[in-house]
Amino acid sequence: MLGGMARYTAPIRMAVVGVGAQGRTLASRIVSDDVPAMTLSALVSSRPREAFPEFDVPTVPTMADLVARDLADAVVICVPHYEHPAFVADALRLGLPVLVDKPLAVYSAQVARLERIVRQHPDVPFGLIANFRAHPVWSEVHRRVAAGDLGDLRRTSFTATRYWRPRRYFEQAPWRATWGGEGGGVLVNQAAHQLDLWTWLCGKPAAVFAYVGFGFRRDIAVEDEVTALVRFESGARGVFVAATHELDGLDRLELLGDRGKVVLTNSDRAEVVTYVKPEQQLSDEMSMEVAARVFTQTVPLGDLYTTETLAAPLSHAGMLAAVLDNFAAHLLRGEPLLAPGLEGGTSVRLANAIRLSGWTGREVPLDFDDDVYLAELNARIRAEGQFPERP
Amino acid sequence: MLGGMARYTAPIRMAVVGVGAQGRTLASRIVSDDVPAMTLSALVSSRPREAFPEFDVPTVPTMADLVARDLADAVVICVPHYEHPAFVADALRLGLPVLVDKPLAVYSAQVARLERIVRQHPDVPFGLIANFRAHPVWSEVHRRVAAGDLGDLRRTSFTATRYWRPRRYFEQAPWRATWGGEGGGVLVNQAAHQLDLWTWLCGKPAAVFAYVGFGFRRDIAVEDEVTALVRFESGARGVFVAATHELDGLDRLELLGDRGKVVLTNSDRAEVVTYVKPEQQLSDEMSMEVAARVFTQTVPLGDLYTTETLAAPLSHAGMLAAVLDNFAAHLLRGEPLLAPGLEGGTSVRLANAIRLSGWTGREVPLDFDDDVYLAELNARIRAEGQFPERP
Repeated sequence: MLGGMARYTAPIRMAVVGVGAQGRTLASRIVSDDVPAMTLSALVSSRPREAFPEFDVPTVPTMADLVARDLADAVVICVPHYEHPAFVADALRLGLPVLVDKPLAVYSAQVARLERIVRQHPDVPFGLIANFRAHPVWSEVHRRVAAGDLGDLRRTSFTATRYWRPRRYFEQAPWRATWGGEGGGVLVNQAAHQLDLWTWLCGKPAAVFAYVGFGFRRDIAVEDEVTALVRFESGARGVFVAATHELDGLDRLELLGDRGKVVLTNSDRAEVVTYVKPEQQLSDEMSMEVAARVFTQTVPLGDLYTTETLAAPLSHAGMLAAVLDNFAAHLLRGEPLLAPGLEGGTSVRLANAIRLSGWTGREVPLDFDDDVYLAELNARIRAEGQFPERP
Repeated sequence: MLGGMARYTAPIRMAVVGVGAQGRTLASRIVSDDVPAMTLSALVSSRPREAFPEFDVPTVPTMADLVARDLADAVVICVPHYEHPAFVADALRLGLPVLVDKPLAVYSAQVARLERIVRQHPDVPFGLIANFRAHPVWSEVHRRVAAGDLGDLRRTSFTATRYWRPRRYFEQAPWRATWGGEGGGVLVNQAAHQLDLWTWLCGKPAAVFAYVGFGFRRDIAVEDEVTALVRFESGARGVFVAATHELDGLDRLELLGDRGKVVLTNSDRAEVVTYVKPEQQLSDEMSMEVAARVFTQTVPLGDLYTTETLAAPLSHAGMLAAVLDNFAAHLLRGEPLLAPGLEGGTSVRLANAIRLSGWTGREVPLDFDDDVYLAELNARIRAEGQFPERP
């Protein structure tokens, strides 16, 4: 793979595929001085070059044109969510290294199909835009979890309710908050970041049970509130809460392990607790006399752990630049991707499983039947009557 | 009922029934100057008076002796948990006003039987010791919730993990953390308070799905970790988390309503958020132009709500005195009880439903079959082989 990378030279010529709001944001980042290893070389859009006067690059209708005219080394995909997997697949078939905006896909059958295509193109670099993974606090917490500093994970909770959206936000475009146009609500649009971060840190979920509010406090078809209980393959238990109707919502992650704890708030600050010994050892070594006094709160448990604060400013522009820089470094020097593309499949399956549990009232395993989910989704698209069913 | 109260005169002569650690604590409180409307008049114990030299009152073996010798106006029950309902029933039959320590019972069939007996003795005052209800912060939050200040409840979560118990705590007595001796773990012994407070504030649960760790991080048979998802009869969704293995655990309640929010931490401090209008009205009134900017976090949402802090010192002795004082005021002047006895049944049923969900892997309605739960409990008592099965 490193050998394969040698064909790229700095700066990487990047084309933006899909030039809506997010596409413009990405193009602006690529053009900026914050990503010196990358230049904007083209836009892929059905609209003409004149539609994007702020970017002085060619505009072509398809990715095949990029290849035919040698206009780009790589592409970043920011078309509508439903189209992400098809565009990624096209890029892979064309041999174009591809970075895709979150979410990787909307429904699990898309992920399964994409997995097969990725296996057929193992040498084409493929990454996911998972901005927060690039933030220093998140990456340091991940480093420590991966290094075993927290020990085995026992329990986790993520409250992602800092996504208040008023009524007219949903009325901005006809695809918003519809089954046919967007394929879901808070889990696909707002809290997709948190689903990714959660599974990145805690590993693969085994099953989920959820209460899901569809149009709970907004006049929309899709979910605006989620309360989910997850058991991970490791045996750890977790709670995931998301909503778009909480005016002063929370962004709060807790991770409790055998050796310590992390509470990460507002995505920019983590309180890290480290036990002086593994918790069960501290439990075993405490004498009967002291143990009998614990419940009166006269035993200074604070001696049994240390605390530490990690903090760094939250800059969305900075995180996006870091993701782009990492993708360039991957192409140029084989540096590991912050988010290998297929890792995005876990949060898609989890979001689907949460909805399926809400619809059925039962616990749903993460390896639920893709066809069952798609049938449920299409039934809702049909009932909505605004968009075609999905294949 | 007020007429029936007229037969009591201050100070109320109180007998403590069951004189273990909690019985001694209660007797000390009654004797103290903090409860002037009550005197300690007797102890009920199978042990002789010499066993309790610190209390200068008669000791009798049964509550019937209290009546025969006119030794008490009322009793407070602090026998082992399993025996609570039988002792309450005896007191009611004897016409003795009765205050019972939490929990009201261990399994739901006990509650159902007790409900029948209470109906037969409607004129005998019956209260539950629910200390925290007496705390100024909790009672003020309850007052506001009941007055509708928060609007309809949408979502709630209670994390009650500030109950670290080391190994030898459980080895202090053979009944601890056993099915036959205690009937459960953190839900019956430690977090019973929080289950009561939660249902007091949020109303009756309709159903629960839970992951329950039995002997998860301690060598005990019963639950040392609980992660439960509850839907309330009102439609609100809730999360309840409890554990005895978290060294620096949390005591944190969140309540989100249509008109505001409360975050109550460490049982002594509440941050109260009040929306200037109902949340859906704020959502409806926001213009498209402003709505489009909300997600860039450039709209000052802080103008849409006010915040306030409630705080008061946490004194366990003070709360217990307040509960006793309230019970005396109920007998003397008909003041409403902080916790009418049967209200304790809700948290018992919820604790049972949580375990039943953990055992079956299914969502359990709060009106589950009492016999099913008892059969499951007895199967575990039998397997344990240390204590008799329960009727």
